[in-house]
Amino acid sequence: MPPWQKTANFVDSAQTFDYWTRCEDSVIEKEFQRGKMILMVNKQPAVHSDSFIYNPTTSKYQMQSAPRLRLFDCQEIRQVLSPYGLEIGTLNSALLDYYHDDVVDIDLRALFGTNIMLNEPPKESGISGQTQLEQLARELGVRFMPTRQAMLTMDDAAQRELLAKCIIITRWYRLFLHCPQCAQLLRMRASKASATCTHCQQDFYPNISPVAITLLRDESNEHTLLVRHKRSAGQVYTCIAGFCSPGERLDQTVRREVAEEVGIECWDVRPLDGSQTWPLPAGSLMVPFVATADMGDEIQASISELEYAKWFSRQEVTEALRRSEEDPLLIKLYRHLSESGKDPETRIQLRYIPPQGAIAHHIIKNWILREF
Amino acid sequence: MPPWQKTANFVDSAQTFDYWTRCEDSVIEKEFQRGKMILMVNKQPAVHSDSFIYNPTTSKYQMQSAPRLRLFDCQEIRQVLSPYGLEIGTLNSALLDYYHDDVVDIDLRALFGTNIMLNEPPKESGISGQTQLEQLARELGVRFMPTRQAMLTMDDAAQRELLAKCIIITRWYRLFLHCPQCAQLLRMRASKASATCTHCQQDFYPNISPVAITLLRDESNEHTLLVRHKRSAGQVYTCIAGFCSPGERLDQTVRREVAEEVGIECWDVRPLDGSQTWPLPAGSLMVPFVATADMGDEIQASISELEYAKWFSRQEVTEALRRSEEDPLLIKLYRHLSESGKDPETRIQLRYIPPQGAIAHHIIKNWILREF
Repeated sequence: MPPWQKTANFVDSAQTFDYWTRCEDSVIEKEFQRGKMILMVNKQPAVHSDSFIYNPTTSKYQMQSAPRLRLFDCQEIRQVLSPYGLEIGTLNSALLDYYHDDVVDIDLRALFGTNIMLNEPPKESGISGQTQLEQLARELGVRFMPTRQAMLTMDDAAQRELLAKCIIITRWYRLFLHCPQCAQLLRMRASKASATCTHCQQDFYPNISPVAITLLRDESNEHTLLVRHKRSAGQVYTCIAGFCSPGERLDQTVRREVAEEVGIECWDVRPLDGSQTWPLPAGSLMVPFVATADMGDEIQASISELEYAKWFSRQEVTEALRRSEEDPLLIKLYRHLSESGKDPETRIQLRYIPPQGAIAHHIIKNWILREF
Repeated sequence: MPPWQKTANFVDSAQTFDYWTRCEDSVIEKEFQRGKMILMVNKQPAVHSDSFIYNPTTSKYQMQSAPRLRLFDCQEIRQVLSPYGLEIGTLNSALLDYYHDDVVDIDLRALFGTNIMLNEPPKESGISGQTQLEQLARELGVRFMPTRQAMLTMDDAAQRELLAKCIIITRWYRLFLHCPQCAQLLRMRASKASATCTHCQQDFYPNISPVAITLLRDESNEHTLLVRHKRSAGQVYTCIAGFCSPGERLDQTVRREVAEEVGIECWDVRPLDGSQTWPLPAGSLMVPFVATADMGDEIQASISELEYAKWFSRQEVTEALRRSEEDPLLIKLYRHLSESGKDPETRIQLRYIPPQGAIAHHIIKNWILREF
């Protein structure tokens, strides 16, 4: 029996998906006919509209529950987008995962993702790109929302992983058009699992970069050093993170990044459970660690990346965790931000840790819960 | 005080190195004048010759102790290679690390690596490429040895990491000549820490791909499932490993790879201490895990990758570990291989685990030592 006809269980599903990533394009074409799809338009994912409520006073949609990705039939998307002059097919979508209903013995289906740009309406039409996007959203019964906000507010980890994969692979297949060595055209597989140079035959794959993310604590385990990135929202503090260099062990990455970012040495670097793909800026695998440092050492925060770095007590961090958990949709945070964003003294107060969509949230929470 | 004038300690060194990766090319040019270098010629690293002994009977050099990379002054290399028509400079070398003697207060020096190809001697000279390489080796007081053999037999972890970094970055700067999106030329930094498209201004970085490597054990913790790769030496068994996909957590990589490679489900996936960069085939970060599976499940080894997969007892693995530790230079293994390599029945016996240069060696050894 060919693997794609097997019934759905974990091993069979994994082997079928593995087969799809390397099969002939015609197999993917066939799977696309009956497949499912998540949709991104103008770099924004389509989520169920019932997570939003229209506020007539502000004329804006406001999130009222955690957003969930809308799953379409590929054929359905194809038909709806056709009047917009957009042809959706395997050329501009990527195989992301497999999908099966909870009904026993149903065939496995391929799950695709796409990330397309709407053509700007002609000026003389008087319709803006935003209006057109909202019209499409209404037709599909969805809302389109900014990627970062979606990643941070979705409460279903599997959906976040799917969206991350969609963002990373659709970006990759738009980026990798030419062989970086000989500049000739690449031939992209229909699955988008790899591309091959039509001239020199080298293979290329979508890529993620390992990042070590570290909860730094003092020897008493009663304090943690958190940092504020220049580009992050006011009053949000997080863990130190940095890319792993070639040749480096991850524990060396931790020690180097702590030295680079806050100018102190750390030791007793240990891995924590869990890891996470983060799609921004270009696809990272976040691997969590805990390490120990001396609260007496002078902190020298890297001026290129950080606004501030400081040791906080368990009580201070517990408060910030509580505020973050009470505001999973980031409504208070964003409101707060617009009020406090200007004043430097206010900005550097610790009021929030990253929301639940970020692995830093769970690392900090597990420290508060004394899991390590 | 500018950072590159500071004395050498961990934090200052890390910050100086960080500065070097993003500084003006002229700073790197200056550091190159007084820098150190490791050398690869025709893809083979230069190691101290005293690890080898000449055997007049076979007319071959034989390894007699673990190889160590030879560290040169950049200027020294430049002079020796000039008569071979090779110009060594920052154009064809990469910044790898910093270096300082154990003398207190000495200035930090930049450590470079290069990987150059000797021009084939003209046919009428009657000199082969190999002869020319050996002549160069004698002049430099080194031996050139195959990369894989060097990585597996070197007993100094820091040197293995340096060699891995040299291989990965020198391969990268030869590969990334054109922007994969617009096909225009990239401008490579002198440090080789990044390259920028001269047309569309996108930045590119040398990359490593995260790989999960897993010791699979049964519930009693008395047996482990090891695999033989088709391309690996006869009678060598190792752990299951596979690339992390975008969107995936590393524990999901473990479960998926075990399902794909041996057709069984595993659970209780936990991270282990340590990680390792492996330069072949194209730069991986090996992240170690332990997971549990059921010895009663039927093994279906992936026919595309594996020759065999089997559960072994602690006693069998202890024997294989002992043989591997008694043969760190792989002399018996290679001899054995040539004798037993043909017979399929002999090939699939467990006699060795990977040598100490591979992280799999340490994962398996730590399991034998009941570290987890």
